[in-house]
Amino acid sequence: MPAKKLSEAEIKTLLSKAKGWSLVNGKLHREFTCDNFVTAFGNMTRVALVAEAMNHHPEWSNVWNKVVIDLHTHSVKGISDFDFVLADKINEIFEPFPPLRLPGGGKGQ
Amino acid sequence: MPAKKLSEAEIKTLLSKAKGWSLVNGKLHREFTCDNFVTAFGNMTRVALVAEAMNHHPEWSNVWNKVVIDLHTHSVKGISDFDFVLADKINEIFEPFPPLRLPGGGKGQ
Amino acid sequence: MPAKKLSEAEIKTLLSKAKGWSLVNGKLHREFTCDNFVTAFGNMTRVALVAEAMNHHPEWSNVWNKVVIDLHTHSVKGISDFDFVLADKINEIFEPFPPLRLPGGGKGQ
Amino acid sequence: MPAKKLSEAEIKTLLSKAKGWSLVNGKLHREFTCDNFVTAFGNMTRVALVAEAMNHHPEWSNVWNKVVIDLHTHSVKGISDFDFVLADKINEIFEPFPPLRLPGGGKGQ
Repeated sequence: MPAKKLSEAEIKTLLSKAKGWSLVNGKLHREFTCDNFVTAFGNMTRVALVAEAMNHHPEWSNVWNKVVIDLHTHSVKGISDFDFVLADKINEIFEPFPPLRLPGGGKGQ
Repeated sequence: MPAKKLSEAEIKTLLSKAKGWSLVNGKLHREFTCDNFVTAFGNMTRVALVAEAMNHHPEWSNVWNKVVIDLHTHSVKGISDFDFVLADKINEIFEPFPPLRLPGGGKGQ
Repeated sequence: MPAKKLSEAEIKTLLSKAKGWSLVNGKLHREFTCDNFVTAFGNMTRVALVAEAMNHHPEWSNVWNKVVIDLHTHSVKGISDFDFVLADKINEIFEPFPPLRLPGGGKGQ
Repeated sequence: MPAKKLSEAEIKTLLSKAKGWSLVNGKLHREFTCDNFVTAFGNMTRVALVAEAMNHHPEWSNVWNKVVIDLHTHSVKGISDFDFVLADKINEIFEPFPPLRLPGGGKGQ
């Protein structure tokens, strides 16, 4: 199934649900800070495996514990559904444990 | 600092604190089951980075979401302090979030 | 396209073209020795990317510069065409430069 | 051994031997183009292993088959001997087989 170009309205709607991502220079953009290089590069490896399996690859850079990712779709000259699918998977990789909400409003983990 | 061979008594004491590891065929042994191949291989990459930096490498095998690891120290023909240091780091990589103990005995995340 | 179980005759024919692979315990088997751990694990990462994209994963083990790989197909309880495709890709990864035959019978890099 | 800041003259001399590297914005800079993402990320993994073992990490970015690397040393606010050691190792990883010189001036591989 080829990538489908999204309209500005569709992008706006999907962005509101894509935690941490914003539109920068026409690309989906997010920056992550990990504990150290080992965690950063381990997460990059997981993203690499997912990206290769989707045949949809990120533009990304890394300096020690920082990973900066930009997503867009070359074939549609814009943002496609693939970018939001990959953005979701990247979020799961970098933030596996969402904050735990405890009864009484406390926060675990 | 070269690896230091541990006595049976030292190994026994350290094993009691090395969660999930046991002595199998004279090696520290542990098996992990991850969610899928992506998580398993991402964790293996993190272990690889740690192992190369220590210049102390595991014997390990992988089938999809399973990773089986054996640690021993060739230069001392037995178990050394390096093996327990690596075992601890491997635990941190595969089990980043220890069970959260909540007041009242509940368990989070 | 699902994996297709191969007959003994088909396996025999394909094995004759799969350099370095043999049938061991009903699986395609090959062992590689690299220069060091860095090269071994770099090659494993490339195999991991290919395997995840095929959704067809190896059984493999590593000790420092050695990588031992067994391939078979769970869904067909035997060897399938997928195993030979993956075996070929693994050969390309671990042996990128085939021996160069020079005029006069010499051998280059 | 801490990193040693290099003078402009030292950098100039070492750069003349560091194939493919140039000085861009006060950093050692080189761009590589690989066959595809699998090769690019496999090479990045090897660089990551070397970098973590040196505790000296690159600034780098990747888009599919392209890898752009910048090296400098934060602790000396400039270029150090570490940068040239890492640059050499990166060259070996990305260009394992130097062009073969054949008798008579031909070129193999």
